[in-house]
Amino acid sequence: MMLDTSAAGVFVIAPTPFADDGALDLDSAARMTEAFLEAGATGLTLLGIMGEAPKLDAEESLRFAQHVITRVGGRVPVIVGVSAPGFAAMRSLARGAMDAGAAGVMIAPAAGLRGDDAVMAYLRQASQVVGDAPWVLQDYPQLTSVAISAGMVTTLANEDARLVMLKAEDHPGLDKLSAIRAAEAKGARRLAILGGNGGIFLPQEIERGADGIMTGYAVPEMLVRVRELILQGEREAAHDLFDLHLPLIRYELQPGLGLAVRKHALMRRGIIASAALRNPGPKLTPATLAEVEFILARLARRDPTLRL
Amino acid sequence: MMLDTSAAGVFVIAPTPFADDGALDLDSAARMTEAFLEAGATGLTLLGIMGEAPKLDAEESLRFAQHVITRVGGRVPVIVGVSAPGFAAMRSLARGAMDAGAAGVMIAPAAGLRGDDAVMAYLRQASQVVGDAPWVLQDYPQLTSVAISAGMVTTLANEDARLVMLKAEDHPGLDKLSAIRAAEAKGARRLAILGGNGGIFLPQEIERGADGIMTGYAVPEMLVRVRELILQGEREAAHDLFDLHLPLIRYELQPGLGLAVRKHALMRRGIIASAALRNPGPKLTPATLAEVEFILARLARRDPTLRL
Amino acid sequence: MMLDTSAAGVFVIAPTPFADDGALDLDSAARMTEAFLEAGATGLTLLGIMGEAPKLDAEESLRFAQHVITRVGGRVPVIVGVSAPGFAAMRSLARGAMDAGAAGVMIAPAAGLRGDDAVMAYLRQASQVVGDAPWVLQDYPQLTSVAISAGMVTTLANEDARLVMLKAEDHPGLDKLSAIRAAEAKGARRLAILGGNGGIFLPQEIERGADGIMTGYAVPEMLVRVRELILQGEREAAHDLFDLHLPLIRYELQPGLGLAVRKHALMRRGIIASAALRNPGPKLTPATLAEVEFILARLARRDPTLRL
Amino acid sequence: MMLDTSAAGVFVIAPTPFADDGALDLDSAARMTEAFLEAGATGLTLLGIMGEAPKLDAEESLRFAQHVITRVGGRVPVIVGVSAPGFAAMRSLARGAMDAGAAGVMIAPAAGLRGDDAVMAYLRQASQVVGDAPWVLQDYPQLTSVAISAGMVTTLANEDARLVMLKAEDHPGLDKLSAIRAAEAKGARRLAILGGNGGIFLPQEIERGADGIMTGYAVPEMLVRVRELILQGEREAAHDLFDLHLPLIRYELQPGLGLAVRKHALMRRGIIASAALRNPGPKLTPATLAEVEFILARLARRDPTLRL
Repeated sequence: MMLDTSAAGVFVIAPTPFADDGALDLDSAARMTEAFLEAGATGLTLLGIMGEAPKLDAEESLRFAQHVITRVGGRVPVIVGVSAPGFAAMRSLARGAMDAGAAGVMIAPAAGLRGDDAVMAYLRQASQVVGDAPWVLQDYPQLTSVAISAGMVTTLANEDARLVMLKAEDHPGLDKLSAIRAAEAKGARRLAILGGNGGIFLPQEIERGADGIMTGYAVPEMLVRVRELILQGEREAAHDLFDLHLPLIRYELQPGLGLAVRKHALMRRGIIASAALRNPGPKLTPATLAEVEFILARLARRDPTLRL
Repeated sequence: MMLDTSAAGVFVIAPTPFADDGALDLDSAARMTEAFLEAGATGLTLLGIMGEAPKLDAEESLRFAQHVITRVGGRVPVIVGVSAPGFAAMRSLARGAMDAGAAGVMIAPAAGLRGDDAVMAYLRQASQVVGDAPWVLQDYPQLTSVAISAGMVTTLANEDARLVMLKAEDHPGLDKLSAIRAAEAKGARRLAILGGNGGIFLPQEIERGADGIMTGYAVPEMLVRVRELILQGEREAAHDLFDLHLPLIRYELQPGLGLAVRKHALMRRGIIASAALRNPGPKLTPATLAEVEFILARLARRDPTLRL
Repeated sequence: MMLDTSAAGVFVIAPTPFADDGALDLDSAARMTEAFLEAGATGLTLLGIMGEAPKLDAEESLRFAQHVITRVGGRVPVIVGVSAPGFAAMRSLARGAMDAGAAGVMIAPAAGLRGDDAVMAYLRQASQVVGDAPWVLQDYPQLTSVAISAGMVTTLANEDARLVMLKAEDHPGLDKLSAIRAAEAKGARRLAILGGNGGIFLPQEIERGADGIMTGYAVPEMLVRVRELILQGEREAAHDLFDLHLPLIRYELQPGLGLAVRKHALMRRGIIASAALRNPGPKLTPATLAEVEFILARLARRDPTLRL
Repeated sequence: MMLDTSAAGVFVIAPTPFADDGALDLDSAARMTEAFLEAGATGLTLLGIMGEAPKLDAEESLRFAQHVITRVGGRVPVIVGVSAPGFAAMRSLARGAMDAGAAGVMIAPAAGLRGDDAVMAYLRQASQVVGDAPWVLQDYPQLTSVAISAGMVTTLANEDARLVMLKAEDHPGLDKLSAIRAAEAKGARRLAILGGNGGIFLPQEIERGADGIMTGYAVPEMLVRVRELILQGEREAAHDLFDLHLPLIRYELQPGLGLAVRKHALMRRGIIASAALRNPGPKLTPATLAEVEFILARLARRDPTLRL
């Protein structure tokens, strides 16, 4: 199954589950895979920034990817993040992931690139590096400091048939999303566009023309349902449901800390066995844990989807 | 009236109102001042980052500050932001503001300072530069890239009696807030601490020991009310009210764009005449305006405080 | 006298002389002006980054500029740096400088702009802000983190007749300089191009087609002479003379520290009365002073131009 | 052979030789190893920033390190750079390098760490990650944006016996080097300190108390000889020789471009077969090549050590 521009829905970004001692926890990975598919995921993304990818060595990265891809067994496409500080590591991981059955790879431009020419040159080279894999362009300037304009996206889309998806998480980024769709309406090649940013603009992203969202929010059932409601024209109901989750979405968006919160929520839902992060990474303080539990409890009272 | 460590409540960060042609709009400034005081503001902050301070020249900055301070007439303390690329401009503005009746000044470390020693040296020099003015330390690393640890804050507090307030808007920053309060409990000099970040963690900030918040959210009535509810022990009610406002808070937090949204909301509330920003600044697209109106309408239906 | 694209030679960037107590030292400014003109300067640049511009308030900036411009009395064009955190301050300073007789203004893009579109928008707005003043584009990404490609320079040159000069100090930047000259050879409007970066690539810049250099090296006589030698075809002699000065050029290029070294050298040459910098700024340690003196002594023995 | 604090002299940072098609060129690696040892290197450093380390995958990194370490055969200590985006990759590479016979590893703090506490926490964790390997702290803020004060260095030195060397390349950094030596004179544990920065401050570094230098300058014979002359009290002769090389040192220091220049010079000296860099990397233009050749020819006429 190869990723193409018809991709849509909710691609859940999977964290990488570790045991309390930091070892890869493949049992949790299997359980998590089933949970996300049951939640309505139409795809999975592994080894993204939220997957603590830089904290795995090359062998572990491939082992984790192979394990999940095998478990998914073709039910949905699996995307593997291959952003790396150099092209050699990117090539190795991309080849290994595709050999293991990935549907495509995801690439963000190297942090700190300056000037549109340098960014475009990097992305063109990266596309060559991943061979014949379909690829997702991750536009995430909060982390990379790299600006990618709507025009750069459509230029790449027109010249590179293997670029099939944009993960749109510039911030602010809604007008850019609209600009890309407008350019497509005038003839540019159409990409699948999935939103991101922890889901904090999910309703707006769908309303602006995104085909779905790719994020790691701890309650992906909500992402699926909100998108459906909007597509069914139930705008107020969509926002009603979404707004219930905003307090948790916001709490999960805290840089660094957010992933620890997310893993805690997944552990509380029984999806992974341990909330441990590898070093360097934050540990939740008692005060933070209490806040998370308070938010989860309020949410569980309001949205029956969330069972703890 | 001089600012001291007993300051508390809601200090509203005032935008700088412009006419559509970019001229200072002092009539709107006067109306805005009254609106914020009626909303329950216990202080005002002028010429912060949200006040487009760098877009005013030296004469305009002082004229605007004088106008608002005169209008306030001593009812609440007024803080003037004096962060500047150099100490000469900081000194001029601080002197002018204090002469005009400001209660204190606010200083953020210069962007890009690296290493705790350099940051401390800068802040100590800046304190000298503003003469005998009470001052507020703005901890806003998202903009400055400067890290200020809890230990640095308490060291400064202990050695500099004119440092009276911390505007705490590191992100994530709640555990740092708790750490400072813990150090104070063990003997460090107590500062007034106000939260920030557009209010997105208001309930948690108060629960962690903040004395209030300093932010420019377009519906400051909510900030006042949520703080009161928490202090009265009505935690669930506080979160219920706060959560109603999260969709707008989140929308206003978009870097760059948020101020334009905020000014639009203030214009829609009849508080300022024009939502214009000076260049360089964003203009709201029709799609963005429609989203803001949708959010405002939903909020007005749920919180009668907000009349449009 | 208005700056135009025929400008060439050595534009000396003047430091701002202060007394030991930090007061503006206008006597030294006058003496320095004469010294630079005697050294063969074909222009002066005031209030550049090396001129500690952000450490002057608005009134001081204008007073200093007026003093020097009056002293120059039209013998050479004087350029005033007007880069500022906002357009209001830029407009005020540009108007004041031009009213005082400046030949043009110099603008660097605001630090941190991302994406070619944002950079171009900023520069187009800035050009409007400075009214009818001829302007110099300062391309200095080491400080601004902003990339300006050769194509962006020629696009601006073609559309804006008031853009008359490029201060080319990207690093590395020699191939970009060649690329701009190549584009001009194919029809783009020709700009005056002056090098920079403390002179560390002076011979190469001239050989690549620069019309001269704009920098604050403490021995501008060398800059003048090296350029002349290259234009006369005396390439080896030019490099021989230049290489004598490289140890000092290199020492002056240390970020932050270099300006203190430069002021010390100018003081030792009897050109300014004090080497003082305003805060925040480094003070030379005894070990550093000894190194500077050693380098100056070696240079004075080899290049009789340098009298101490 | 384990690295300890008695290390001194010239540790040459080896580039990673590639064939024109980008394949690892182990024959050149062997020839280069012999050339550096003949030049007087007292140590080698592999997989530093200049070694294009991020462009090798994990297997290649180890293969290259093993090949060179075997070739060196214990004649001098070999240090392997293990800075990596995550600790898992750092651990794998450190273990592999030490197993292959490396004398120690080199670690720079992760780019972008803010605040002294975060930097110290990272370095302490990294020291644990590399197991029982002696390690070198690389202080290179131009690349990492991380400030490490003299006090932080001596704190780490006192608490971690496996920290044996500082690669001192802050810029400016000479006064920090002096400050560390002064702290050691007052009782802090003494580290080996080697300078860096392409050698551009070699004489000053040695005079300030550095035990040598670790850099990849293309003519390491000069580094060896200059250090000897200074230690023999021949200061003027040392500077005379050094100054001959400054034009090339400066040219090699251009970020990004410099490594291509350095590889070209090594190729011209017959030390490596190809000057190729892996992507993304610059290609020297004809104009740049001509400048390099001009500089090399001038140098070869003045310093007979350099045969082309």
